[in-house]
Amino acid sequence: MRDAKLPIDDRGLAYGDGLFETVLVRDGQPLLWDYHMARLDEGVERLSLPRPDFTAFDALPAQCGPGLQVLKLMLTRGSGGRGYRPPEPGELRWRWTASPFQPSPERWFEGVAVRCCELRLGIQPRLAGIKHLARLENVLARQEWQDDSIAEGLLCDSHGDLVEATTMNLIWLRRGRLETPLLDRSGVRGTLLSALDDAVELHWVREDLDTLLEADAAWLLNSVQGVWPIRRLDDACGNPLKQWPPAVDCAIQRIAHRRLGYPLNPGD
Amino acid sequence: MRDAKLPIDDRGLAYGDGLFETVLVRDGQPLLWDYHMARLDEGVERLSLPRPDFTAFDALPAQCGPGLQVLKLMLTRGSGGRGYRPPEPGELRWRWTASPFQPSPERWFEGVAVRCCELRLGIQPRLAGIKHLARLENVLARQEWQDDSIAEGLLCDSHGDLVEATTMNLIWLRRGRLETPLLDRSGVRGTLLSALDDAVELHWVREDLDTLLEADAAWLLNSVQGVWPIRRLDDACGNPLKQWPPAVDCAIQRIAHRRLGYPLNPGD
Repeated sequence: MRDAKLPIDDRGLAYGDGLFETVLVRDGQPLLWDYHMARLDEGVERLSLPRPDFTAFDALPAQCGPGLQVLKLMLTRGSGGRGYRPPEPGELRWRWTASPFQPSPERWFEGVAVRCCELRLGIQPRLAGIKHLARLENVLARQEWQDDSIAEGLLCDSHGDLVEATTMNLIWLRRGRLETPLLDRSGVRGTLLSALDDAVELHWVREDLDTLLEADAAWLLNSVQGVWPIRRLDDACGNPLKQWPPAVDCAIQRIAHRRLGYPLNPGD
Repeated sequence: MRDAKLPIDDRGLAYGDGLFETVLVRDGQPLLWDYHMARLDEGVERLSLPRPDFTAFDALPAQCGPGLQVLKLMLTRGSGGRGYRPPEPGELRWRWTASPFQPSPERWFEGVAVRCCELRLGIQPRLAGIKHLARLENVLARQEWQDDSIAEGLLCDSHGDLVEATTMNLIWLRRGRLETPLLDRSGVRGTLLSALDDAVELHWVREDLDTLLEADAAWLLNSVQGVWPIRRLDDACGNPLKQWPPAVDCAIQRIAHRRLGYPLNPGD
């Protein structure tokens, strides 16, 4: 439903008891739609939410309006239950919004500066990978810097292993292999990451920050922004840790941008 | 504000970016009010929320209606910001509701059966202790049992150390000492627990489940339900782990119930 308000006893608000997806839509056509619906489906299973009628969501992209839009779809367990205990039978509640979107071409082609966050993500295999509404760790991490020249913050888990950035996934090239952090204990499995995993040989690894410092190139990516090469990495105090030369091998970006309809070269 | 609806772009809904308190109110008089306001204050600091006018909250209990009520007060970071990044300056949004409440005298005086949850709480010192809105772990834990004869589920963290129950804190008696789990890495510091900590000598410990099995008595407690002695503890499969005799020493309950205006004996 497109409705600007929600009852305050909604369990999404009360406990973060729900899921969301943010989908890039171009002229009414959603990008990576099947991947978004698959992740939503997995989230519904993992949280034991009442099953939505997924076909009802198929009609939303066409209603987003012209040009580049971000469709945000939110599912919650609705109202009711006794405290944390879900109501039986539950009723799913869903809402959506669309907002015009402008990507950042300079980040695609000049790369970005990122920093490490001090916050460590908690280990929670039951919630890892899915895009649930309880994202307060990400909010705290994003509060760690105000400097607009820093595009993103990298997050490790409480064991010190690399996970993701606050809103993006992370891939690096090391010894000729494309590696990305396992997302089985924390983090969100991005839909663009899943699409790339189906297109190229990605190695899922459990590694700490030192591994990233050995990488020959590194990228941040999500289904809305596309792929940003990392140009510089700072520590949590803002001191430079590593610089990468621009554009070592952007096959990853070319594959991703073809999927998203984004340009492959600065002039496109 | 007493308003039944909230804008769907509220950050409480989007990310769990907010706090709540559930306060026992008897005939318009709040119980443990200073402890609730102190925890809220700490939460505001920890999340760097815009500071509310705390004096405005003082008028709420009187508006809850007669008899025993639970006042639920919710604070969120309002709308806006760019994704996880909070808006600057932010504007706090708050809502409240009151619901009639009936406690469970049989749980006070006959004790309760509880089970261990399989879910392990993530370690997150930045969020530990405060009552934030991102409580999806508690919802998942509460889904682990449907049997109404089980009153609560005990939670350990990802290191295997005891933390709390899904909605209550935990105190046990061991070798003549009252012990309770440290809440510096996960869990919520209950207001009744804080009040007891000011009244008796509580030892804050980092211990696993085996320690609880050595205890001579154990209790669950919160500011709404009061104190429930644990009569039986089952494992996560429902097999009995331990039974305790009824009413070893209920000084803890007497002190707590005096604070809450609850009876000290079955006949009261």
